[in-house]
Amino acid sequence: MPRPQSALFSKTRLAFSYLSSPPTLLSVPEVKMPGNWQELIADKQQRREASIPKEWIIQLPSDDVLDVTPIPRESGLLSAKELEITELDNVPLLLKNLASGEWSAVEVTTAFAKRAVIAHQLTNCLTEIFIDRALERAAWLDEQLKTTGKVVGPLHGLPISLKDQITIKGLETTMGYASWIGKYADKDATLTEILYECGAVLYVRTNVPQTLMYPETYNLVFGRTLNPYNRKLTSGGSSGGEGVLIAMRGSPLGVGSDIGGSVRIPAAHNGLYGLRPSYNRIPYQGAVNSQEGQDSLPSVLGPLSNDLGGIKTFVQSVVGRKPWYKDPLAVRKPWVEEEYQLVEHGGGKKLCFGILWNDGVIVPHPPVTRALEMTKKALLAAGHEVVEWKPYKHAEMYAITGAMWTAGGVADYTAVTSLSGEPLLYSMEGPDDTKRSLYLSQESISVFELWELQKKRIALRKEYLDYWQSSVKLTGTGRPVDALISPVAPYAPHPHGKNQGAEYTMIWNSYDYSACTFPVTKVDPSLDQPQPRSEFLSEKDEMIYKLYDSPETYKNGPVSLQLVGRTLEEEAVIRMTEIVSGSLRG
Amino acid sequence: MPRPQSALFSKTRLAFSYLSSPPTLLSVPEVKMPGNWQELIADKQQRREASIPKEWIIQLPSDDVLDVTPIPRESGLLSAKELEITELDNVPLLLKNLASGEWSAVEVTTAFAKRAVIAHQLTNCLTEIFIDRALERAAWLDEQLKTTGKVVGPLHGLPISLKDQITIKGLETTMGYASWIGKYADKDATLTEILYECGAVLYVRTNVPQTLMYPETYNLVFGRTLNPYNRKLTSGGSSGGEGVLIAMRGSPLGVGSDIGGSVRIPAAHNGLYGLRPSYNRIPYQGAVNSQEGQDSLPSVLGPLSNDLGGIKTFVQSVVGRKPWYKDPLAVRKPWVEEEYQLVEHGGGKKLCFGILWNDGVIVPHPPVTRALEMTKKALLAAGHEVVEWKPYKHAEMYAITGAMWTAGGVADYTAVTSLSGEPLLYSMEGPDDTKRSLYLSQESISVFELWELQKKRIALRKEYLDYWQSSVKLTGTGRPVDALISPVAPYAPHPHGKNQGAEYTMIWNSYDYSACTFPVTKVDPSLDQPQPRSEFLSEKDEMIYKLYDSPETYKNGPVSLQLVGRTLEEEAVIRMTEIVSGSLRG
Repeated sequence: MPRPQSALFSKTRLAFSYLSSPPTLLSVPEVKMPGNWQELIADKQQRREASIPKEWIIQLPSDDVLDVTPIPRESGLLSAKELEITELDNVPLLLKNLASGEWSAVEVTTAFAKRAVIAHQLTNCLTEIFIDRALERAAWLDEQLKTTGKVVGPLHGLPISLKDQITIKGLETTMGYASWIGKYADKDATLTEILYECGAVLYVRTNVPQTLMYPETYNLVFGRTLNPYNRKLTSGGSSGGEGVLIAMRGSPLGVGSDIGGSVRIPAAHNGLYGLRPSYNRIPYQGAVNSQEGQDSLPSVLGPLSNDLGGIKTFVQSVVGRKPWYKDPLAVRKPWVEEEYQLVEHGGGKKLCFGILWNDGVIVPHPPVTRALEMTKKALLAAGHEVVEWKPYKHAEMYAITGAMWTAGGVADYTAVTSLSGEPLLYSMEGPDDTKRSLYLSQESISVFELWELQKKRIALRKEYLDYWQSSVKLTGTGRPVDALISPVAPYAPHPHGKNQGAEYTMIWNSYDYSACTFPVTKVDPSLDQPQPRSEFLSEKDEMIYKLYDSPETYKNGPVSLQLVGRTLEEEAVIRMTEIVSGSLRG
Repeated sequence: MPRPQSALFSKTRLAFSYLSSPPTLLSVPEVKMPGNWQELIADKQQRREASIPKEWIIQLPSDDVLDVTPIPRESGLLSAKELEITELDNVPLLLKNLASGEWSAVEVTTAFAKRAVIAHQLTNCLTEIFIDRALERAAWLDEQLKTTGKVVGPLHGLPISLKDQITIKGLETTMGYASWIGKYADKDATLTEILYECGAVLYVRTNVPQTLMYPETYNLVFGRTLNPYNRKLTSGGSSGGEGVLIAMRGSPLGVGSDIGGSVRIPAAHNGLYGLRPSYNRIPYQGAVNSQEGQDSLPSVLGPLSNDLGGIKTFVQSVVGRKPWYKDPLAVRKPWVEEEYQLVEHGGGKKLCFGILWNDGVIVPHPPVTRALEMTKKALLAAGHEVVEWKPYKHAEMYAITGAMWTAGGVADYTAVTSLSGEPLLYSMEGPDDTKRSLYLSQESISVFELWELQKKRIALRKEYLDYWQSSVKLTGTGRPVDALISPVAPYAPHPHGKNQGAEYTMIWNSYDYSACTFPVTKVDPSLDQPQPRSEFLSEKDEMIYKLYDSPETYKNGPVSLQLVGRTLEEEAVIRMTEIVSGSLRG
């Protein structure tokens, strides 16, 4: 796929008569691969293995132990204090204990690092493990606090895990590509830089699917990441390593990316809070990516945590550093406290939510519908309003979104895989599946056709906005619905390789609406029996219906939903998710 | 160019298996042209002629009267009060007089409408003239004020002119295309809607070049718009009709669009203030456009006025209406008063400006350099700092920008012109010129190549941001430079058809920096003699050098500069432009 630079130049020569030499418009592969891809992978796997501290290696349970979430506690490797630290599930309190010196950064880092390594042995969630570097940093933070009496920043001493895209100077970023093994970063991504300025401790990076374009987590370099609640089920993806690590309490807060659900799906499948912020609210600069330069529907970075307080703290801290002076695409929007206080939503006293029971294309499986019912009941009990949200042209937006991704997708993925000769995976089943997935359509379109698509998309965005505004007629609050409550996927975590797309999440990427997941329940075969159906909304609806053949298969899988607000409304979305989660807890 | 919808669909079919019928991805031409393009144009010209109130037709001066700016005053058609109203050059005071009822909306509308029609007869600046509708609206506004004692909104009674893109329900929007004659809008553009909510009066729309992609104003439907200070010179473009109308005091405030300089170039060439806001600060939704759907480097709407107070009032009023609830792309950013107060710029007490003497590609003509010198001197005298701004890779960004525009440009323009068969203009010389301009390169690139370009562009944006931040070493203020002072074009308004591109403006579109023009001086042959040069920075530099063969040719042409701030920093840019303009006035 790498082609001579002169090719594009000659096409556009006319424009550049004032240049003395041709501009470098096409990027040149940065890394030349000497060996073949299998050797590269074997070497990388060995090095990953070697980065695990020997003293933290545990006796592995047999493969038929499906729920591995209790194992860190049972392993005996963690002290009582380390269990307390890692199971606190309260990021602001963790930060308070760090800031007061009650817990040292070294203690906290050690606790999470140990638990992360245990989690990894059970689920295969990590790609890069750099505990020594983290402990050195933690010791420095402790020293700073001791000598100055002040924290380095608002995240002082907090261990934060990162998806294997967010570069850290001196470390490899492979993103699941054999071709990128040996690609050491010569600088930090902007987010890395900001997290360091805020006092965070970075210690592990986490697994992804090849190309990042799947809602599961499997690649040829690191293999498959398993759901810790039921290892026969998917972790979700593409930020699956993050989802699993955090669910195992191997990290209090992690950062993933989301182009069509890649933060929210693993957050949901692992019972976590996960925020998909609007485009460029969180700086992406310097992170490696798939479809880099695709600016129609950009991927965004967003936090995952067991604790909504962690989500809030992350956004506040990062935007508080004015990322727009480091990342040219970052939006100039500081944390707006009045928006968090829901000034535009009646102060949050009586909210009105639209519930999306289905999208008009795919009917969710029974556990997801049950989660919607539970949430509706809880909200009504807490004094809020709930109205039915009729889907508006979701299928049309799915079509446009898919076409945008495939417009240059295969060319992009192949440009990378061809460097080492590694095969491009056709699905998440494994390397032997040759049925091309949606994301691997090879038919490309012209730039003018892309503009036409984008025009159609903008028109739909306007229609959806007007549709939302018109809900003022339904709510009784004098406002349109304050937020939507929507499935994250039509299913709870499913068996590996069986994903059928990401419609319920990608729709909000297409509209650039801010959305946050929240855990509701787990699959319970006694409550979640399949319902007989003979009519279907679409071919896909039928395919997905048939996936839920036995509730036993899905047992113990977390079921989560998402709260959807408007563009750049992260503050309000976080606050409203607190309100919804609070209602669910009664 | 219109092609069967099924073509794109079949390409992307794979993605849409859940759709029962193919989505409509390619837009279908909305208007079928029955006649040929010449007949369509003849009819449209006749209808435009008929929309001019007969009693406002003036005796035309001979063609060798070059400076027509005094003619409205001399025509005898305007009363003393109408002259006072139209020459006030103070939008806030005009609004105050309207709000107090001292001047009625009907009086003010009549005054500007009359003067606009006079201006049009001298310069050919108008496309749509709808005075009756405007007077009806003005009478309603007067009635509202009388009965409620309150203004309808912050722009109560203010006549505002619009570029021939911003749709108004019931009126045609041709945008200089014969193919779009008869294309009546069935709804208002979002900006139209907001201006009405704010109490404005719309009364005329203004001329543009075919395709909008030229910094001059000429098309086959309406012909050429002339510079009122010297009718042998260009009005600039693509918002040339606006620039000329406002310079003639036929409008106190107008709205243009800017994809590569189309607000700033006509503002500069007509001695006006013109703001290029950041992407989507002002809602674009519903306006027709060229390259619609091209989202790499979107066009923006921005105001032009004789009065900076008008620019400020416009931005405040429009963003005050929360356009993000009407336009899905509009940025959620209200007017931030602290930014206007320059809190991040030391309160504006001692600013430090970087002066861009040239861009490393093209040396400006003597009048432009003189304007830079005058501004530097005035700023130093006012106690501010000025440092030299060395250009950073401008040529590379020009190359990328040009390539993005041409990626689908010709396909887009041809899709429209082919509807009526009108010829696509190859330059602004006239219909007989067959030398293809930069904007009409027909070589298209693939979507993947577009992504590669965009990737390179984002990398350059990061470099430029870091470069700007690093200027903290030069300023002595503890901050990077607060803004740049840059040419708007390398020349004052030149003879018709002789433009050579738009480098000095398009660079800031590429970086999405907010920029505002301000008038400095006029070409004075006694001060602006050509300087002998034998070495050139580029081919284009030499071409442009040779354009300035005789200062007499450029006589009386306005010379303006632009102040350039950062992305979404419109508030600070407006305030700093006030400071610079104030310094120039002493």
